[in-house]
Amino acid sequence: MKPIIRFPTIDRRVLLSSLAMLPVLSVALRPTSALAQAQRDPLPSWNEGATKSSILDFVARVTTQGGSDFVPVDQRIATFDNDGTLWIEQPMYVQLAFALDRVKTMAPMHPEWKTRQPFAGVLDGDLKAVMASGEKGLVEILAVTHAGMSTAEFEKIVTDWLATARDHRFKRPYTELVYLPMLELLGYLRANGFKTFIASGGGIEFMRPWTERIYGIPPEQVIGSSIKTRFEMRDTIPLLFRLPDINFVDDKAGKPIGINEHIGRRPIAAFGNSDGDLEMLQWTTLGASGPRFGLIVHHTDAEREYAYDRHSHFGKLDLALDAAAVNRWTVVDMKKDWKRIFAFD
Amino acid sequence: MKPIIRFPTIDRRVLLSSLAMLPVLSVALRPTSALAQAQRDPLPSWNEGATKSSILDFVARVTTQGGSDFVPVDQRIATFDNDGTLWIEQPMYVQLAFALDRVKTMAPMHPEWKTRQPFAGVLDGDLKAVMASGEKGLVEILAVTHAGMSTAEFEKIVTDWLATARDHRFKRPYTELVYLPMLELLGYLRANGFKTFIASGGGIEFMRPWTERIYGIPPEQVIGSSIKTRFEMRDTIPLLFRLPDINFVDDKAGKPIGINEHIGRRPIAAFGNSDGDLEMLQWTTLGASGPRFGLIVHHTDAEREYAYDRHSHFGKLDLALDAAAVNRWTVVDMKKDWKRIFAFD
Repeated sequence: MKPIIRFPTIDRRVLLSSLAMLPVLSVALRPTSALAQAQRDPLPSWNEGATKSSILDFVARVTTQGGSDFVPVDQRIATFDNDGTLWIEQPMYVQLAFALDRVKTMAPMHPEWKTRQPFAGVLDGDLKAVMASGEKGLVEILAVTHAGMSTAEFEKIVTDWLATARDHRFKRPYTELVYLPMLELLGYLRANGFKTFIASGGGIEFMRPWTERIYGIPPEQVIGSSIKTRFEMRDTIPLLFRLPDINFVDDKAGKPIGINEHIGRRPIAAFGNSDGDLEMLQWTTLGASGPRFGLIVHHTDAEREYAYDRHSHFGKLDLALDAAAVNRWTVVDMKKDWKRIFAFD
Repeated sequence: MKPIIRFPTIDRRVLLSSLAMLPVLSVALRPTSALAQAQRDPLPSWNEGATKSSILDFVARVTTQGGSDFVPVDQRIATFDNDGTLWIEQPMYVQLAFALDRVKTMAPMHPEWKTRQPFAGVLDGDLKAVMASGEKGLVEILAVTHAGMSTAEFEKIVTDWLATARDHRFKRPYTELVYLPMLELLGYLRANGFKTFIASGGGIEFMRPWTERIYGIPPEQVIGSSIKTRFEMRDTIPLLFRLPDINFVDDKAGKPIGINEHIGRRPIAAFGNSDGDLEMLQWTTLGASGPRFGLIVHHTDAEREYAYDRHSHFGKLDLALDAAAVNRWTVVDMKKDWKRIFAFD
């Protein structure tokens, strides 16, 4: 892994564009038996206070038979952003770290990269040069690292990478850098009849191989950005070949669109942490009859994790923070509201 | 409804392109309690024979703990085509009947349609004139009938139509023209731990409002063709506006692509009835380790339903029938294998 470098002006849309998926060998916390948990405190890593109460109150209301806010089980749909909401997104999206590592791995087969941007910059650790190549350069990196193989091959590439890659600061596999309070929340919602989905700007095929093991969320409940694929019969063997063309960007106004396409009904609860989640929270909570819940994770803990919001290059939280106040969405103050952040804390 | 008219040369791709969705007020058969059923004959509307045995054998093999063909529950994914596999598709796709009816309903607001094809043809019952307008004409019909409203509005339009529309031959709501043996099969698979999905060339938003009630398949397990949508905030009310642009055609090679996008893993069983299902059956059954099951419904009963295959304008079954023989997919001979076809028989 390269040292931490600040990225000057990255367009999130571009970054997300080709990002795609994988399983993990490293074992992070499984959502502990949600049932056993619910009998005691279902959210032990959350400090007492208004934030935790707002969650418990919402779940109590929608699950109380005969209550005015009761919601039938099949309509208990909850959607979660991934980067910065369920796992870490600093100093860069994990999937970008994957793409940069992948360029290095592939470099011996591409001697021309030594003198060609954006690849030369990646290989020299000169991220400024990479960034100077602009959107075009980033798209090129994503195309060579995420396309040109079958979906099965890509799954293996991602799985193998996650098994060995380590975060620079925490010296841990990325799949351990998931937020324990959010794992508890996922389990708590499911124990109360919710179906939990991911709706992430990240690549759908980059997430699916490991979300079931790490979050308890099966592949068919993962929504994300995608590239196009082509069905081929090679002799008698069918495969889906990954093409270097963007299919769908599941970010900002794309999130309600992706949620509608995949789920076909509006969630009653949504969880995010950045402006990329604004429209998902609007779509979930506004202009709808019945109880709704919106939550924003605000990264306020530079010591235990990171502190960032309005001016961050990754996970910028500006418009959505203002909208949270107007729309009464719950805002998690990580420093204050979370007793523990990671399972290894 | 118009009398039955043969369509000379309809490109299925075009027909499917804009097709989109709706709920139903009429009550068809619910999948009966699958558990109670499984204790007796789980498939009472299927005659004894090789076809029925192939289904029972496959399910027994994948659910036998410790057996060499055992498949864990989370991998028991089954995908079903809709038109011609779960419900009727003659004399035309139900969704096309919807589109034509919709043109008539909208006509008073469009006086210019009286003299403009393809609309004049629809209004005069002159389907030849409609067809003479070619793909361009059909796309125009689909655009005006399926786009230009919010997703919520479209859902209501479809629901209202299905509540009153009747099939010309059977004088029944379309939601009663679902195949009883296939309802039993859906319930039987679910009772054995399968997650059942629809993967249809029809419009995803045309199916979702009623698939849960009629088939027991919730909206999030429906895959289909779609048009693009745009997220909008109108004052404080969010909506998805349906645009007259094709997003995805879930037919032929599109089916494995749609299945991968929505489910993220390969089915172990797939059920279809036409060449539009060929690639889905290839993707499901070929080149994979472990037990796989492919089934083709062959419409052979002109008396009780319809008889058609290699030369049909809707639901053409030609390449896939040959492939079934080569790949040992089960072929249902409706006349011989199905004791009853509809619940009202």
